[in-house]
Amino acid sequence: MVKRIEKKPQDKLTATGNSTLNPFTEPIAFVEPGEEIEVSTWDAYGGIISPTRTFQEAVDQGLAGALNPVTGPIYIRGAEPGDTLVVEILDIEVPEWGGSSIIPGFGALEGWLNLMKPRTKISYIKEDKITYETDHGKTIELETEPFIGTIGVSPAYEAIQTLAPGPHGGNMDCPDIRPGNTLYLPVTQKGALFGLGDVHAIQGDGEICGTAVEIGAVVKIRFNVLKKTIAWPRVESDDMIMTVCSARPLEDAARLAYRELINWMVSDYGWDRDDAYMFLSLAVKARIAQIVDPLYTVVAKVSKKYL
Amino acid sequence: MVKRIEKKPQDKLTATGNSTLNPFTEPIAFVEPGEEIEVSTWDAYGGIISPTRTFQEAVDQGLAGALNPVTGPIYIRGAEPGDTLVVEILDIEVPEWGGSSIIPGFGALEGWLNLMKPRTKISYIKEDKITYETDHGKTIELETEPFIGTIGVSPAYEAIQTLAPGPHGGNMDCPDIRPGNTLYLPVTQKGALFGLGDVHAIQGDGEICGTAVEIGAVVKIRFNVLKKTIAWPRVESDDMIMTVCSARPLEDAARLAYRELINWMVSDYGWDRDDAYMFLSLAVKARIAQIVDPLYTVVAKVSKKYL
Amino acid sequence: MVKRIEKKPQDKLTATGNSTLNPFTEPIAFVEPGEEIEVSTWDAYGGIISPTRTFQEAVDQGLAGALNPVTGPIYIRGAEPGDTLVVEILDIEVPEWGGSSIIPGFGALEGWLNLMKPRTKISYIKEDKITYETDHGKTIELETEPFIGTIGVSPAYEAIQTLAPGPHGGNMDCPDIRPGNTLYLPVTQKGALFGLGDVHAIQGDGEICGTAVEIGAVVKIRFNVLKKTIAWPRVESDDMIMTVCSARPLEDAARLAYRELINWMVSDYGWDRDDAYMFLSLAVKARIAQIVDPLYTVVAKVSKKYL
Amino acid sequence: MVKRIEKKPQDKLTATGNSTLNPFTEPIAFVEPGEEIEVSTWDAYGGIISPTRTFQEAVDQGLAGALNPVTGPIYIRGAEPGDTLVVEILDIEVPEWGGSSIIPGFGALEGWLNLMKPRTKISYIKEDKITYETDHGKTIELETEPFIGTIGVSPAYEAIQTLAPGPHGGNMDCPDIRPGNTLYLPVTQKGALFGLGDVHAIQGDGEICGTAVEIGAVVKIRFNVLKKTIAWPRVESDDMIMTVCSARPLEDAARLAYRELINWMVSDYGWDRDDAYMFLSLAVKARIAQIVDPLYTVVAKVSKKYL
Repeated sequence: MVKRIEKKPQDKLTATGNSTLNPFTEPIAFVEPGEEIEVSTWDAYGGIISPTRTFQEAVDQGLAGALNPVTGPIYIRGAEPGDTLVVEILDIEVPEWGGSSIIPGFGALEGWLNLMKPRTKISYIKEDKITYETDHGKTIELETEPFIGTIGVSPAYEAIQTLAPGPHGGNMDCPDIRPGNTLYLPVTQKGALFGLGDVHAIQGDGEICGTAVEIGAVVKIRFNVLKKTIAWPRVESDDMIMTVCSARPLEDAARLAYRELINWMVSDYGWDRDDAYMFLSLAVKARIAQIVDPLYTVVAKVSKKYL
Repeated sequence: MVKRIEKKPQDKLTATGNSTLNPFTEPIAFVEPGEEIEVSTWDAYGGIISPTRTFQEAVDQGLAGALNPVTGPIYIRGAEPGDTLVVEILDIEVPEWGGSSIIPGFGALEGWLNLMKPRTKISYIKEDKITYETDHGKTIELETEPFIGTIGVSPAYEAIQTLAPGPHGGNMDCPDIRPGNTLYLPVTQKGALFGLGDVHAIQGDGEICGTAVEIGAVVKIRFNVLKKTIAWPRVESDDMIMTVCSARPLEDAARLAYRELINWMVSDYGWDRDDAYMFLSLAVKARIAQIVDPLYTVVAKVSKKYL
Repeated sequence: MVKRIEKKPQDKLTATGNSTLNPFTEPIAFVEPGEEIEVSTWDAYGGIISPTRTFQEAVDQGLAGALNPVTGPIYIRGAEPGDTLVVEILDIEVPEWGGSSIIPGFGALEGWLNLMKPRTKISYIKEDKITYETDHGKTIELETEPFIGTIGVSPAYEAIQTLAPGPHGGNMDCPDIRPGNTLYLPVTQKGALFGLGDVHAIQGDGEICGTAVEIGAVVKIRFNVLKKTIAWPRVESDDMIMTVCSARPLEDAARLAYRELINWMVSDYGWDRDDAYMFLSLAVKARIAQIVDPLYTVVAKVSKKYL
Repeated sequence: MVKRIEKKPQDKLTATGNSTLNPFTEPIAFVEPGEEIEVSTWDAYGGIISPTRTFQEAVDQGLAGALNPVTGPIYIRGAEPGDTLVVEILDIEVPEWGGSSIIPGFGALEGWLNLMKPRTKISYIKEDKITYETDHGKTIELETEPFIGTIGVSPAYEAIQTLAPGPHGGNMDCPDIRPGNTLYLPVTQKGALFGLGDVHAIQGDGEICGTAVEIGAVVKIRFNVLKKTIAWPRVESDDMIMTVCSARPLEDAARLAYRELINWMVSDYGWDRDDAYMFLSLAVKARIAQIVDPLYTVVAKVSKKYL
């Protein structure tokens, strides 16, 4: 039977405990490497929207509480500072609806599209299909591509808001952190102090209006610990290795991701550094994960068949 | 029979005539809309490297001349300021080798990877395969994915160097400008005054070392003219519409491309603006074309099946 | 007699307690509004360099501990979330020497000036003069212009490293936070939980090598509390009002500072918003405070005689 | 008697000839080194606004023509590619009024201050005083601080719009290019092909609404030619040396300006490079010239007394 870690009830969520990744909050669960666990997560709104209540209405009703809350901290036994936490994403159970919103003051085109009004749009989800009803009367069906938007470990000594990504993971909004893939995170605290939330049923590159189809979900994962040190989050799929880096401006996020990928090719696959640089100039793929959070995120990838 | 436009001999290349897109240079050819033409192009080095001569050696021998030269200007009859030039990319004939280089002072990780040395690497091409020999003794085979790196029309009154991209096209280094796709460019001069060059046999996202597998090639294209006005280059494939925008920092290139795509959905497909914004937050794809030229380039795409 | 708050001994400094501004650490002192106090501060190195030990030597000897440590938290009675903390900078007592350093991996021209070597340079200070000995054999005398580099209050729920500036203050490295001027900070915690350190005997605009003449100092200040809310740090001198904002890229720090200054003119001085915008286009002064920390800082100023 | 170069009549202004700096346009005057000349200039609007006509009205009346037009090209005898053109700014004769404008789509806070409306404000100038009437009924007097906003030479082979700054000078909007100071420009064309315009009676740092008090003026200058090569514009006052560099994002403009200043200290004043870097970290001054043009401009300065 799979061990299940429940999210805290909404009225028990706290700003530091759930809206930061931090070394101060008591773990809510202790997990063994290799154990399969299920974690229930809040949506990015902290559960305050519904098919009958928009985000703006919820804010006006005073319901807005923890921002982008994570379920955690989860203590992984055996994880020590300097280690790498391995997170296998096994499955994501998607609910029957999710909501995307325009939130004035937030979003990639804020200031570029004047006069946007607050708005929440509910999309229903059934048998891996999302139904999007357009304003001009069309019904569009999208395949779900669920992934974990916010996932990370405690920073070394800071408490970093869960709206921000960084070397510790966090709000990377990277669609490659999805079932079937494995995420690697640099551990800086005993037990790693892991948290996750902000699952998306689908998201475009850049998450441009600031939200995707935001869902509360149940995520099945398995942890392991490697006795090696990495600098930034990494992802591995069946056929690609990927680095996930965050910075501003966006080109610096890209440069970090490219450099980390070169470093990985050099350390683990025997490449010469300058040769890896030239080769990636021919063969790397890059995805803009998001340009709406405090730092922007880019994923750089190269096919394993070349390594 | 297909009309063929030959590139000028290397010793006839001029800085303004071939290393800018401009309204000052006399057309080298006049073309009718609908006519199929072949254009021979210089590689980005202006033809000075070879399997036995690196770029640095060529520079040291005083061979460096026109930078990233284009073949043109080509005058398209009937094209008027305010029109849109349609360029169907029909085919690209690839030669037997191409060269990528590290050029100190150039490239996305210049300053991030200290002590890089100048270097040119020749890759041989045969039957749609590129052979890359790594420094650590591996042979990698890559499928060719040829596309046109620099392609554009004359600016309204400036002469803009062919190393730079912009609203007029130019050095976008966008792999989607490839056979089978159609490029749209905003016309600002009578006859459009089109030029192209800098073909790549393959390129990774970002063109990070500053060069791809650079080739001189023969490109088969067909022009048409639309009596409509666009602001930035657009691309259409069988299944996607795409906008190609350039700016610094990179997030501004992305914002422009997203905004242009929204504008396109509104003007041609009946979408409400804010709804298009929310929908793209779920369904847009974005590619970093390059982060090495005077402005950086991002392509934003959405599937036609949603429109 | 002036109340004095001593910095903790070096071996008692902790990463969270002294290298973040945070709501978790117990106050080391409680202060009344209006009371004049003296605070002793660590230099940015945490006291590990000396005229006979460079920063690199100290690192190699394992002495590097708390980064950019602050003295605090200081609890100001009566300060409540939503208030503004007023900090009058009364005096800075400067020691006999300070040290500036090149630290590879840090600094505004890292990657722009290749191959810089680690280095620490001690400058002696006497009667308000700093003596700088150049490598080419000149002796330069600079007037001291001491100010507080890192000064701020606790964030609302995060623990933010003291290397970073933000709306809460922090590592702004703003030379206008100097004796005679008054700093305003937005309070988000009961008691404000104030900290300061990183005093500079002098600093150029940008703090380009990443360090100034870094000194441990004794700072005389007086707190007050205003029942009004501000969004970012503000400074007032005899003749100017100033806003101090931090972001990346640098233009966003400037835009924030300009906008905050417009907001101030509108709320407190009766200006129309667009008119303030046009007027500042004629009369604002802007200083690049620093471009080396996790966010960059700009100060925008306007003369009180126009308000 | 001083030789006077008249600006072209408005109906003779051409986009390439007057709204670019370029190597294609025939010189309108030939000047000897050492000769004192007067040049009459257009305001940045091309002379279409007046106390009774706003910029928006002029645009609506179809009057908008050449953008930010320069008077030129002026051919300086003896100037050769690789030389440095010396421009002594002797005097600026200021007219009786100038106009600043909010132009939607332009300006540093466009998108940051929603809903700005187009607007032109006339300020009268008398005996070195500018009178600014605020919307809330105050009259403010500002001392004039006239300088040349756009000043430069022809690029090597491009025609660059006069709205843009660059290594060739152009629209730097740098208040230090004022009477009493000397500007140095890198020559890339025989005769330098100099142009100037866009004089400001006063401007704040950043030129944030996109315009200053824009005036047509008469500028008295004297040219000389140095047989040395520089990379970017430089300015010298009685007591400072300054570098003026342009890029995006703004931190890159600052980094270029700092690096150029270090290079100048090394080449002309005998400094060691890393020592100059450390010293400027203590003593450099930096001014944000403008953040509204296609590239942003920063001036970095150091006092001659330290050199």
